[in-house]
Amino acid sequence: MTRTNGQWVLASRPEGMIAESNFEYKEEALREIGDGEVLIRNLYLAFEPAMRGWVDDVPSYIPPVGIGEVMRASTVGQVIESKNDAYPTGKLVSGMFGWQQYVIGDGTRGAFGGISNVPDGIPPYKMLSLLGGTGLTAYFGVHAIHPIQEGDNVLVSGAAGATGSVVAQIARLRGAGKVVGIAGGPDKCDWLRNKAKVDGAIDYKNENVGRRIREEFPKGVDLFFDNVGGDILDATLPRMADNGRITMCGGISGYNEKELPAGPRNIMQIVIHRLSVRGFILFDHIAGVGEAIRDLTAWSESGELVVEEDIQEGFENTPKTFLRLFQGKNLGKQLIRIADAE
Amino acid sequence: MTRTNGQWVLASRPEGMIAESNFEYKEEALREIGDGEVLIRNLYLAFEPAMRGWVDDVPSYIPPVGIGEVMRASTVGQVIESKNDAYPTGKLVSGMFGWQQYVIGDGTRGAFGGISNVPDGIPPYKMLSLLGGTGLTAYFGVHAIHPIQEGDNVLVSGAAGATGSVVAQIARLRGAGKVVGIAGGPDKCDWLRNKAKVDGAIDYKNENVGRRIREEFPKGVDLFFDNVGGDILDATLPRMADNGRITMCGGISGYNEKELPAGPRNIMQIVIHRLSVRGFILFDHIAGVGEAIRDLTAWSESGELVVEEDIQEGFENTPKTFLRLFQGKNLGKQLIRIADAE
Repeated sequence: MTRTNGQWVLASRPEGMIAESNFEYKEEALREIGDGEVLIRNLYLAFEPAMRGWVDDVPSYIPPVGIGEVMRASTVGQVIESKNDAYPTGKLVSGMFGWQQYVIGDGTRGAFGGISNVPDGIPPYKMLSLLGGTGLTAYFGVHAIHPIQEGDNVLVSGAAGATGSVVAQIARLRGAGKVVGIAGGPDKCDWLRNKAKVDGAIDYKNENVGRRIREEFPKGVDLFFDNVGGDILDATLPRMADNGRITMCGGISGYNEKELPAGPRNIMQIVIHRLSVRGFILFDHIAGVGEAIRDLTAWSESGELVVEEDIQEGFENTPKTFLRLFQGKNLGKQLIRIADAE
Repeated sequence: MTRTNGQWVLASRPEGMIAESNFEYKEEALREIGDGEVLIRNLYLAFEPAMRGWVDDVPSYIPPVGIGEVMRASTVGQVIESKNDAYPTGKLVSGMFGWQQYVIGDGTRGAFGGISNVPDGIPPYKMLSLLGGTGLTAYFGVHAIHPIQEGDNVLVSGAAGATGSVVAQIARLRGAGKVVGIAGGPDKCDWLRNKAKVDGAIDYKNENVGRRIREEFPKGVDLFFDNVGGDILDATLPRMADNGRITMCGGISGYNEKELPAGPRNIMQIVIHRLSVRGFILFDHIAGVGEAIRDLTAWSESGELVVEEDIQEGFENTPKTFLRLFQGKNLGKQLIRIADAE
């Protein structure tokens, strides 16, 4: 039986805000699998802000996606044909299988380690949220870069997003004195207070961020975990405590600018407040993934850590769903379901 | 005998570039000294870029100089009358005695620890350069913030200035693999190569800084010691090695801007290259001053560390001499001599 594989490929590089028209739908006939190979049907595709950087033709920590190539993305799928005993038919697996309906793999090739088995007992999409790149980024960002110190005053930007929401809750679990999240709109702020159970929320769309930071942290912010950059970083810098730490995870506010946006005017506050600012990339911390998965799973099962997913439907809506990240529409991890497990 | 004390006071806060007119000359009659007090005549006044920040009415690590107050500055002076056995007449001393001809002190009051004795055997002005705030800042910046690692590729901005020139040489002495300084003009670059004996120099006034950094460090910069900020920081960020370190000491490029200048567009390189960026202030490291003075003196006496002074003359030229820092005129420590020791 010849199957048709629907694919979303990169059609053009965005200039400024990414658009649906930067992607193009294509179909190809799938070949038969060979010895050692498996055919995987993608069930869920995951979206993250860092993917915006992958489509720019600039040097970065991984090569850009080429024009005409399937858009790179983490996914969860199911093995539907197998000539590899490690991945029997029916098995749920995860990998960087991209924006396509099917992928043929052998578990050795492919970006970032090939094929991972989805652990039993969790909904498969949790492999992309709680245990996905964003959940792991949150875990290592809190533990490996600037660990929480007892009583820390912690501020998190992008706090209703897939990484920020996990960071804020881990900070609480690890003994922070006070945790406040910055998010857009009252719904996300309510979620932060009532579901993530952090101590406060700042609505950047409706409040003066700088003034609110000062209100929440009259003695300054000890640890700022930043996913946003831009004005939010600029507003926070003067409100850092002396010897404060900033963990830089990303800067979604600037990802869709045609030219690199100006940086924070308050950068000299790094000197004045003797700050330590550190950036990090998940891939450097892969050795610790086992422990991370153990902790994240335990916290999730006990209910101490709440991870939300925003699950859209239909492969045809893939590019549109990606854009939701930059429109601030998602609460928690942005996913799309494109097929059901058999 | 009543003496007249000439003083330069802050007349107005600068908006943008500081001007001579922001200072005003005044005279006051000196009172007699009381028990425990000494009368000190200032011999040398020291100038540093950070003083520009002290005249802005904004919160910082020390309070601003008030309008009508004597401009704050490090100086070296001589005790010319004494009712305090710790500081006998004739003794050379140093302190934050400000832009004035005389000061009355008792060794306990006053900013930053009162009165220090100038060690025997060094020219008194070395107390303001090699052993002054800028030399000590260089010492702690290299040792306490991001220590040199064997073989480090080190870039220093403001490298012909009082702090940068010492940083570049200490980096060489501490085992850096390659040290390159950024300075303005061929004379300063020649000095860096031939006197400071660093491995290379970049003339930011006549060369493309980004391209030259790439030429000097094809594998990236491991440690960037930044005194300048602005475009120099922006040009360096994308040329940092993975896991590179940036020690932020200051940002002279922005000190005279009317409004805070835009920050570095390339700030997301902190994430991409997993950088550690740390700011620091000399005052936090005072406990280590003894060791610093020992090392700096030994290196200077052996000729391994060359510290230059640019010594102007005449108390009437004090504000004008301060401006030389922001015109890039000084090579090494900017000083002015206003009197001779008796």
